[in-house]
Amino acid sequence: MAVPVQIDPFHAISISRLAHRLRAEGGSVIHMEFGQPSTGAPAAAIDAAHRILDADGMGYWESPGLKARIAAHYDEAYGVAVDPERVILTCGASPAFVLALSCLFAPGARVALARPGYVAYRNTLKALHLVPLEFACGEAERFQITSAAVERLDPAPDGLIIASPANPTGTIIPPEELRALAEVCKRRGIALVSDEIYHGLSYTRPAETMLQHAPGALVVNSFSKYFSMAGWRLGWLIVPETLIDAARARMGNLFLTPPSLAQHAGLIAFDCREELEGHLKTYARNRELLLKALPQMGLRRIAPPDGAFYIYADVGHLTNDSLAFCEALLRDTGVAVAPGLDFDPVDGNGFIRFSFAVSTGLVEEAIRRMEPWFAARTLVAAGAPVRGQRTSTISSRPSVE
Amino acid sequence: MAVPVQIDPFHAISISRLAHRLRAEGGSVIHMEFGQPSTGAPAAAIDAAHRILDADGMGYWESPGLKARIAAHYDEAYGVAVDPERVILTCGASPAFVLALSCLFAPGARVALARPGYVAYRNTLKALHLVPLEFACGEAERFQITSAAVERLDPAPDGLIIASPANPTGTIIPPEELRALAEVCKRRGIALVSDEIYHGLSYTRPAETMLQHAPGALVVNSFSKYFSMAGWRLGWLIVPETLIDAARARMGNLFLTPPSLAQHAGLIAFDCREELEGHLKTYARNRELLLKALPQMGLRRIAPPDGAFYIYADVGHLTNDSLAFCEALLRDTGVAVAPGLDFDPVDGNGFIRFSFAVSTGLVEEAIRRMEPWFAARTLVAAGAPVRGQRTSTISSRPSVE
Repeated sequence: MAVPVQIDPFHAISISRLAHRLRAEGGSVIHMEFGQPSTGAPAAAIDAAHRILDADGMGYWESPGLKARIAAHYDEAYGVAVDPERVILTCGASPAFVLALSCLFAPGARVALARPGYVAYRNTLKALHLVPLEFACGEAERFQITSAAVERLDPAPDGLIIASPANPTGTIIPPEELRALAEVCKRRGIALVSDEIYHGLSYTRPAETMLQHAPGALVVNSFSKYFSMAGWRLGWLIVPETLIDAARARMGNLFLTPPSLAQHAGLIAFDCREELEGHLKTYARNRELLLKALPQMGLRRIAPPDGAFYIYADVGHLTNDSLAFCEALLRDTGVAVAPGLDFDPVDGNGFIRFSFAVSTGLVEEAIRRMEPWFAARTLVAAGAPVRGQRTSTISSRPSVE
Repeated sequence: MAVPVQIDPFHAISISRLAHRLRAEGGSVIHMEFGQPSTGAPAAAIDAAHRILDADGMGYWESPGLKARIAAHYDEAYGVAVDPERVILTCGASPAFVLALSCLFAPGARVALARPGYVAYRNTLKALHLVPLEFACGEAERFQITSAAVERLDPAPDGLIIASPANPTGTIIPPEELRALAEVCKRRGIALVSDEIYHGLSYTRPAETMLQHAPGALVVNSFSKYFSMAGWRLGWLIVPETLIDAARARMGNLFLTPPSLAQHAGLIAFDCREELEGHLKTYARNRELLLKALPQMGLRRIAPPDGAFYIYADVGHLTNDSLAFCEALLRDTGVAVAPGLDFDPVDGNGFIRFSFAVSTGLVEEAIRRMEPWFAARTLVAAGAPVRGQRTSTISSRPSVE
């Protein structure tokens, strides 16, 4: 019998654990290592949750109203008609992704995806005994897999995963390229899974849903990012008509139902645009600050962050061990960021990811702390002697949290 | 390439949908079709949730306190030492089960289990491309797989799933048989997954955890049954030391984290024994009422419900289509129960499952409604002419909900 595969852990978790330990020891930590807003759910959603807590027994439940609201959202935001029955409510985007892969593929299926990319794509594929075909995507391709690359794959893969805006780079796939990807996948019989979890968070142009170009694509989304409800664990999967029964049966058996309270609150969150757009304005300011500051720290090769709340920066001139680099940055400055290794097991040791979904004050403080640290590192890398280099302690820093 | 497998839906869901439609049309429905308490979370847990909603941003989170509390519970309740690191918090028992199977097995692995049994065992095994080896277990074996049956299997299966108390029968595996199962599994190299989701709900004797007999077993449990928190979606998996890394990596990639609010509330729920034991007393009364009433309705072959909140009753003298039988019972009396087909695809058409985790008043009313219905059916089955048989409507019934 084949043995269960080895799955890599998230290295960002070890950074986060170190961050929490340093904080417990009195250090001042700025959490930019995880992809989650530091804000909570919209106020009206929290109010709704209070009411439900007092009025509802909260048994297993699937909200018809929320399914209808999500379906309507596709019409409003993208002009795409989606039958509410095609909406499968999940306990976040991660199980939505498991659901999508389980509906589409059997063990041995080959699924193409971009490298760098969200670590769970590769690991979930492996856990389900599918074969990830990772494409090295660099600056030239804006870190995204291209239709030309998919065209060249021989034999054609069974599936393709795309993400726009992407994690860790924030790049958005332009409409013409989405169309070209849809076309090549249709022609070559490649099943499409589109991760749209960062939709709503765009700085250059709005992201289009793959459903505008490939009506049969499976689309993953969640309330964790734009809606600022990460710990509520609520997401959704859009499936084509032909997969509704398969997806519903898998949801019922593998996951049962999503959290009831989150479904009530999520429905209300759709009406909290003003508060949520406020968060987006904060992220936009943070992005501008970092895009200005990072090049001054010598981080000039960064992916263009069209959306999401990440900056993926090349630190290959400073390290060939991104995890150790992140640990040193954290110990010395209290700024926690994610090692590129999580997103790219081959070239990721030369990258780090900043998550800027924190307050603007914290981004400013992070920049203040990082500037001298990167300056010193850059001098060391250039071979210059360094005096008075910062020691590995953050305990004397003032708290700004 | 192999194609994704076909997974059966829960038939109880179609009963529930019909029940909700009948209710929307003005009918009076008593919900005994799903395995969930009709009570809500303990009051103190709800209070805690209110406080957290106002104070915590609820990002991705894993509660160290809850892991420690669950570990301590194994010491208190069973005298078994469990390191908190062995506790993996999940979004309910269903994903805990996916996690367990994914850690233990690769596609093609053969896993033995009892038939009848919880439908998700079979379906999740199939969805993960594992091979369910279902053992027909009848009254003689108290509907449980025996160590003797596992001993006889040639070749030995890769895994064994046990459930005590079981769904749909409520039978508890006695300690000596747990010990024998542990022994044969150890000797033959069979991985053990023990579903202990109904622990705490016992009427004859407390159920022992498999960890008392097989320290390396994987144990699934949740807050959905005893703790009355089904829609909160919180469960856990206990893994042996050797599988901690594999389980944590899969949790992070396939599911990420369980709902934050549920973790806060779940911790408090451990201190709400008085309220929870009150629910248990209600179930005990309901069980007594049904055990007295069902034989008088001609349902004399029922599994001995040692625990859980189910009665699995043989209706083979009345039907060979349990789904149609449940629909007729629901339409005629407003009493929704689950068809045996969900739990046993071979012999289940002759069984139905009552879930008695409702108020005692509703159980009494359900019995009042069912008595004449079963009497009429029994007469028909016996070939007698029936006058004034009830028509398929429930709209004139008084509401007792």
